Amino acid sequence: MLRDPGLAQMGKVYLVGAGPGNPDLLTMKAVRTLGLADLVLHDALVSPEILALISPRAQVINVGKRCGRKNTTQEEINDLLVRFASAGKTVVRLKSGDPSIFARAGEELDALREAGIEVEMVPGVTSSLAAAATIGTSLTDRRKADQVLFISAHRGHGKQNPDWQSLVNSRTTVVVYMPGEYQAVAEDLSKAGLSESTPCAVVSQVSTPNEQWFQTTIGSLHRAPVMASPCVLIVGEAVRTTSTQRFQADIGEGLRFQEDFPVSSSTEF
Amino acid sequence: MLRDPGLAQMGKVYLVGAGPGNPDLLTMKAVRTLGLADLVLHDALVSPEILALISPRAQVINVGKRCGRKNTTQEEINDLLVRFASAGKTVVRLKSGDPSIFARAGEELDALREAGIEVEMVPGVTSSLAAAATIGTSLTDRRKADQVLFISAHRGHGKQNPDWQSLVNSRTTVVVYMPGEYQAVAEDLSKAGLSESTPCAVVSQVSTPNEQWFQTTIGSLHRAPVMASPCVLIVGEAVRTTSTQRFQADIGEGLRFQEDFPVSSSTEF
Repeated sequence: MLRDPGLAQMGKVYLVGAGPGNPDLLTMKAVRTLGLADLVLHDALVSPEILALISPRAQVINVGKRCGRKNTTQEEINDLLVRFASAGKTVVRLKSGDPSIFARAGEELDALREAGIEVEMVPGVTSSLAAAATIGTSLTDRRKADQVLFISAHRGHGKQNPDWQSLVNSRTTVVVYMPGEYQAVAEDLSKAGLSESTPCAVVSQVSTPNEQWFQTTIGSLHRAPVMASPCVLIVGEAVRTTSTQRFQADIGEGLRFQEDFPVSSSTEF
Repeated sequence: MLRDPGLAQMGKVYLVGAGPGNPDLLTMKAVRTLGLADLVLHDALVSPEILALISPRAQVINVGKRCGRKNTTQEEINDLLVRFASAGKTVVRLKSGDPSIFARAGEELDALREAGIEVEMVPGVTSSLAAAATIGTSLTDRRKADQVLFISAHRGHGKQNPDWQSLVNSRTTVVVYMPGEYQAVAEDLSKAGLSESTPCAVVSQVSTPNEQWFQTTIGSLHRAPVMASPCVLIVGEAVRTTSTQRFQADIGEGLRFQEDFPVSSSTEF
């Protein structure tokens, strides 16, 4: 079927990883796509400093879900993507972290392909990597870990026997995205066979000015303070090597604020 | 002990993720640290386009290892980091991908802490995320996968009973960094209980102009073409949803070249 040349050309959708929150951790390509966009559909967790980089002429819609309250259903998001791209628009679907890690990119990719719309994924820094940087550890420190497993407690909770429990051993670094209630996740980790003394760290709002983190053990995780979402929980011997080693003699476990990583805008370039 | 104020102040070391190769996938922060550096120690796999972003006044040393042939031992690298930072220099240790994923950051962090040197990690896009973007899939597509496991065949080969075999199930996306010999890794994956029909994709030199990828199954992986290092192998049902779905009826498995992702320099900003 020939298109009427007067009609708009088909647009394109970019599924873009916004990284963990600090605009400094956007990729160059992500920044460029934000400048190209006619429409940006973003998650609730994408920071205002990042939204500030969007082209002023773009329409911006928050399609985020928080704590189960949905602004926009997944189906509505898919429809928006297809509708605007079909109308010739350059659409950026901006996702916290990386689009291929716990971000529901699969459904959007399928909807776009079914509609014959060009789609390109722009990978980003997933929050666990930023969290590892914050606590100053290698997730795969070869002296302590052979592999790293990313799970989401959000999915695992409520399951009789979470799939991931069989996946854990003492040489696996486990990263729990959206860990939820500490008591429940600690019980799951113990059931998976990890000892109560296994070190772990919760990192909240990593890379942002509100970043906080707390280092403890599985056995004491239930006493960790509740911190603002989003959080990741990193579990395993690899956590034992952290930049706070020099402080541990003084204060043991405790809440830390990272102060030397101010949010800076892209205009510094 | 007071320092002679005439002596140089202590420097700082940044462990920086260079991402998978395309300078477009550097973070803004990584670009800035490259501009600040007095000395850059980089892996062999960091691309020339990225090295071109280093401050012209910086000293640049390739400390990379390839195929087991070492230019510089880990101990020598640690010594260089400590020596230059102690002399007041800003040192960037530039690692392919993300510094906390199979990058030996642990040893360097320990050496720097022991020497009392300030160190900051700058996270990056690890190659598996870029590979997922290239093949157009979500590593954690919730309809097909509950979790994702990163392993390195480089470590697993030769082990009588690789640790990770017990970690695999049909709802785990497995990413093998540096998969090595296909036949051996396919056997390991089969022994781990994955069926021969499990889809997988090898992605070579992801995000660079030489990027290639090949989609197949575990059972046919041994027939995959040998592609240039670095490669990642992505295994699991999540791979079945890819941007090539529309082509599969025509050409089945096959080698693909991604052509719409040219390397662009930062001067485009």
